[in-house]
Amino acid sequence: MRLSPGDPIFYDLFTASAQNLRAGVRVLSEALAPDADRAALVATLKDIEHTGDEHTHDIMKRVNSGTKPPFHRDDIYRLAGGLDDILDDVEAALDFMVLYRVKDLPTGVAAMVDVLDRAAELTAEAMPRLRTAAQLTKYWIEINRLENEADQTYRRLLARIFSGEYDALTVHKLKDVIEILESAVDGFETVANIVEQIALKES
Amino acid sequence: MRLSPGDPIFYDLFTASAQNLRAGVRVLSEALAPDADRAALVATLKDIEHTGDEHTHDIMKRVNSGTKPPFHRDDIYRLAGGLDDILDDVEAALDFMVLYRVKDLPTGVAAMVDVLDRAAELTAEAMPRLRTAAQLTKYWIEINRLENEADQTYRRLLARIFSGEYDALTVHKLKDVIEILESAVDGFETVANIVEQIALKES
Amino acid sequence: MRLSPGDPIFYDLFTASAQNLRAGVRVLSEALAPDADRAALVATLKDIEHTGDEHTHDIMKRVNSGTKPPFHRDDIYRLAGGLDDILDDVEAALDFMVLYRVKDLPTGVAAMVDVLDRAAELTAEAMPRLRTAAQLTKYWIEINRLENEADQTYRRLLARIFSGEYDALTVHKLKDVIEILESAVDGFETVANIVEQIALKES
Repeated sequence: MRLSPGDPIFYDLFTASAQNLRAGVRVLSEALAPDADRAALVATLKDIEHTGDEHTHDIMKRVNSGTKPPFHRDDIYRLAGGLDDILDDVEAALDFMVLYRVKDLPTGVAAMVDVLDRAAELTAEAMPRLRTAAQLTKYWIEINRLENEADQTYRRLLARIFSGEYDALTVHKLKDVIEILESAVDGFETVANIVEQIALKES
Repeated sequence: MRLSPGDPIFYDLFTASAQNLRAGVRVLSEALAPDADRAALVATLKDIEHTGDEHTHDIMKRVNSGTKPPFHRDDIYRLAGGLDDILDDVEAALDFMVLYRVKDLPTGVAAMVDVLDRAAELTAEAMPRLRTAAQLTKYWIEINRLENEADQTYRRLLARIFSGEYDALTVHKLKDVIEILESAVDGFETVANIVEQIALKES
Repeated sequence: MRLSPGDPIFYDLFTASAQNLRAGVRVLSEALAPDADRAALVATLKDIEHTGDEHTHDIMKRVNSGTKPPFHRDDIYRLAGGLDDILDDVEAALDFMVLYRVKDLPTGVAAMVDVLDRAAELTAEAMPRLRTAAQLTKYWIEINRLENEADQTYRRLLARIFSGEYDALTVHKLKDVIEILESAVDGFETVANIVEQIALKES
């Protein structure tokens, strides 16, 4: 199984983009520590987001400048956009935590961020393998498993914040944070589906 | 009007997937009865969801294994994914009802589930017609009409749950259930749009 | 830089659709005035939405009837659908304001509607330029800048409505209005991304 020829630079660019996303998820993870300097972490994450925008822009520019991509243009756009969307969610999640001054997050939140961390690691490892389409099925299955796991955590978290333990405004704030984390997890599944479709088409 | 040649097995697979989705919507519909054994229905719906995942996987595998599909690969992915997304919403809606222990649902909820039931029936009937592209416009128009109807019901339901009749936490719970039903209705419109585009392209 | 040949009627149709969307945003903007006759504006906006549906339908019909479009069919569908989605959000935003009887909207709401107004103007101006792909990068950059600006306003608005100033039900109502405005702004970014991809592919 081998992907069609085309400039291999794109594998490096997607790998760099996915590694940058992984760095972003790490910052979110650090922000959960009780003594974290969240304001500083927000600034770090904004820098990572700008780096991500540059990666996306670089990928688009190269497709446009005539560098032949190894898979279909539309899939290049979708994959770059998919990675970008997740980083946006990660940044928004941290921003909401700081903006809303949410102090005590229910434990399930850390479990969801752990899933994001693992998904980001798997995605960063999968990108260079696009080149040979090796073990992409394994990656895709694992991401889907993680998404199902996070989905259960997400639903139990919602039931918990609606249990009467929190005041009405805190419920709103926690729900926003939890929903954006869920959206980020879904984003990893979307990226995995795009990768699977690229691998299937090119095989 | 006739779609391009290609293995007709795909029409059977999409029909099976849409019929399975219809069975899922029926379970949700049964769950609205006051004396329903919702826990048992949740288990039944999980089984239906697994069957749905198998249909989706089977469709993807066949495209990959070289079976020539009768329409574009990307449209095969989108249609399979679109049906899958609706079943996910239907399963989530029932899960939330049980998890949140929502007892008295406003009457509009049953009206939305009725729309889902009718849309699922129309969709299951439309899938075999993909083969000859017969009467797909009629199906598409009717789904759009149903979506508009459900949209009005959805908005009135929101206005009602915000009217002061329910306590703050019940509002959150009902809103989640109502929004996921709305998302399922939108999903049927998305599927109808994909079907229309397939029919237009191939005509 | 020039787009491939094809019937130029499509540029006119997309321009008409974007101008109609702009008219819709204007109505929403007028509805923010304290003495606005919102019920009358709802009716006007419904008419504009019907006109929009006719534009979308006309575009689809022409692609189907064999008129050769100047860019890929899928991009025609996505662009028409993208414009349609924004108008749906604009209509829903006004509908919610009236349905929920929301009287005093926080000032940030007007700022978001101003962004929509500017984005609608830029989009209507960009459509005829699809023909020569002239200055589309400038349009795309400006829409992205506006989206970032609106995103900041959106987050500050959420923090404000969760600050304790509003009662629990008003929080729900305002959140719905604000989120649909945010979705409309995102819709303009989606349209700008589609336009960019069309321009990149055809260049």
